[in-house]
Amino acid sequence: MLRVTKEYFTCSGDEEKQLLDSGLSLGPVTVAYETCGSLNEAGDNAILICHAFSGDSHVAGIYEDGPDDQPPGWWDCMVGPGKGIDTERYFVICCNILGSCMGSTGPSSTNPETGKPYGLDFPMVTIGDMVNAQKKVLDHLGINKLHSVIGGSVGGMQVLEWCVRYPQMLRSAIPIATTMRHSALAIAFNEVARQAIMADPNWNKGDYYNKNDPDLGLAVARMIGHITYLSDEAMRRKFGRNLQDKEDFSFNFDADFQVESYLHYQGIKFAKRFDANSVLYITKAADYFDLADTTNTRESLQDLAGSHSKFLVISYSSDWLYPTYQAKELVQALKRTGQDVSFCEIEADCGHDAFLIPDDRLTKLIRGFLNGISTSQTAI
Amino acid sequence: MLRVTKEYFTCSGDEEKQLLDSGLSLGPVTVAYETCGSLNEAGDNAILICHAFSGDSHVAGIYEDGPDDQPPGWWDCMVGPGKGIDTERYFVICCNILGSCMGSTGPSSTNPETGKPYGLDFPMVTIGDMVNAQKKVLDHLGINKLHSVIGGSVGGMQVLEWCVRYPQMLRSAIPIATTMRHSALAIAFNEVARQAIMADPNWNKGDYYNKNDPDLGLAVARMIGHITYLSDEAMRRKFGRNLQDKEDFSFNFDADFQVESYLHYQGIKFAKRFDANSVLYITKAADYFDLADTTNTRESLQDLAGSHSKFLVISYSSDWLYPTYQAKELVQALKRTGQDVSFCEIEADCGHDAFLIPDDRLTKLIRGFLNGISTSQTAI
Repeated sequence: MLRVTKEYFTCSGDEEKQLLDSGLSLGPVTVAYETCGSLNEAGDNAILICHAFSGDSHVAGIYEDGPDDQPPGWWDCMVGPGKGIDTERYFVICCNILGSCMGSTGPSSTNPETGKPYGLDFPMVTIGDMVNAQKKVLDHLGINKLHSVIGGSVGGMQVLEWCVRYPQMLRSAIPIATTMRHSALAIAFNEVARQAIMADPNWNKGDYYNKNDPDLGLAVARMIGHITYLSDEAMRRKFGRNLQDKEDFSFNFDADFQVESYLHYQGIKFAKRFDANSVLYITKAADYFDLADTTNTRESLQDLAGSHSKFLVISYSSDWLYPTYQAKELVQALKRTGQDVSFCEIEADCGHDAFLIPDDRLTKLIRGFLNGISTSQTAI
Repeated sequence: MLRVTKEYFTCSGDEEKQLLDSGLSLGPVTVAYETCGSLNEAGDNAILICHAFSGDSHVAGIYEDGPDDQPPGWWDCMVGPGKGIDTERYFVICCNILGSCMGSTGPSSTNPETGKPYGLDFPMVTIGDMVNAQKKVLDHLGINKLHSVIGGSVGGMQVLEWCVRYPQMLRSAIPIATTMRHSALAIAFNEVARQAIMADPNWNKGDYYNKNDPDLGLAVARMIGHITYLSDEAMRRKFGRNLQDKEDFSFNFDADFQVESYLHYQGIKFAKRFDANSVLYITKAADYFDLADTTNTRESLQDLAGSHSKFLVISYSSDWLYPTYQAKELVQALKRTGQDVSFCEIEADCGHDAFLIPDDRLTKLIRGFLNGISTSQTAI
């Protein structure tokens, strides 16, 4: 099993403060990251993996200094020696996103101006701000060309933002189960999740650190999220109307059905490991993300014109959070800017989260695409 | 405009206590109801309309004793003189469901044993219990044959339960945008809504009457519901990514997008008019409802064998709460018991709530079906 170490990079000196898309600045910014494999002499075999909403830098392997029975990283089925993203061939980097609570600077970090956690004094960050912070880590590692940038869901948004902000750094990109911009439906789900957190009196306008956490509100928010990560089919197959440890209805408000117990479990588990304010900031960043917006002065896919990367866009047939029609819109938008785009919709009934589940089809697709890039680059 | 009066019927004497499906009993039970039109001499022109989850008995017209500018009933577009359900021809009855808070006995009603509101001492009620309470009102009105029973969503569940419990009383039935049983997805949404209410400390285990209401939790619950009543398409058309009264993002946690403002508004409005405990009881009744379950001793569609009603099953193409595939399952199940079933999927992008929106196609469909029943009955 791959052994990895969690590392931290903090910008210092002139770059101590990061200018944000909101116009505010934030600093010092620390980014937690992990790497697997080795950078080759040419320095051109690096792949950046961007994690989804509640993920972290621990993409694969187990920690060098951890216990033997620790769980592996969140995409260990895809990343490792001989796997789809082969760490014997590629140098893989994964950074925890800005605004999160898994090592990078976020609302639960200490505000240097007060010596206390930021809470709502943390400035709003965008997907672009997350990408800029990751760029600093790559600079620090001496990487100025990426073989590919790969990610699913909110990770896929970072992939697209990378393409727009640093097109010259990229040879290829694989956005998975993602969108150019949130639909009203996706915004609606995020807003209800935020309202569930903010309705919890323990939330206390974001000032709850070292007090009581808004665990109940956070659990409800996570339950809402979990529904959107699954699909009607997956839930029917997984739970149906099965009762949980009982023969008949309770006729009270206990969890009668397995799907209820599952959601409770997911909600409680999440509340133990994640920061409620980070949910607010990251969901808002996802809602703001809009690479199709050409009405304002922000980055959009139009900025790709003139650059040439290879794209592999992947969607899942049962993903109703970022449905295939949105992936197709992305493909069209990329093609309009002259990019070389491949597209694949994978038939699977497991909904949005499908990319996290081991699936030979996805593994082969990614391996083939990455190796094709290598070959074509060598041929040039 | 049709003028109506809200009336109340309370069972008394030997029937003061209603035996519930849970095995518990409840009483005295009051049912609020309204009627439009007149019962004919033969007593065979009555149509029962069953309302959805948060509806009430005020199906059409305006109140006799109300102000001139009062809003009409919730299905005024369908019910009235010369309308789809023609009150010059039919005698229409609509009862508020048991467990609700709009006039019929529910958790906010006074518990005769304590002189205080029931709260969670209110026993769990099922869709079947709601139907049994409505049956008492029909007995009281001297109606022993229904020309039709019609309802959408949770109202459609009552329609189906009517068919199973009192098949000999029915000439026809129109279940709209409904299902034989909740999918895991529908249960999941309901459970998250319940958890949002129960996470509100004001909920206080259901004991909040004459104290502070759990308005924040109830508003979150309603927002979740509202998302399921709409559709991806409807939300794109209605809101898209339009901003609410601003030119650019706020970069804080205010409602930036119109869809967020809409959900806030719906949540707050609902919290003002509806009882949180009623949401708990009615959603649980909907989750328990299962006419396809043949593994236990409860009623199921199999009980229809031997009876002969005409059915018109209607679904909406963009309804993802009770999708068309579930309506088709219902049609198949009805046909297996030898019923005469017509089925229509209406193409509409407005989601589950479509049946509440004026639509000539639905009006014509219902009018034609009802009048067809009349004709065939006359011919016999």
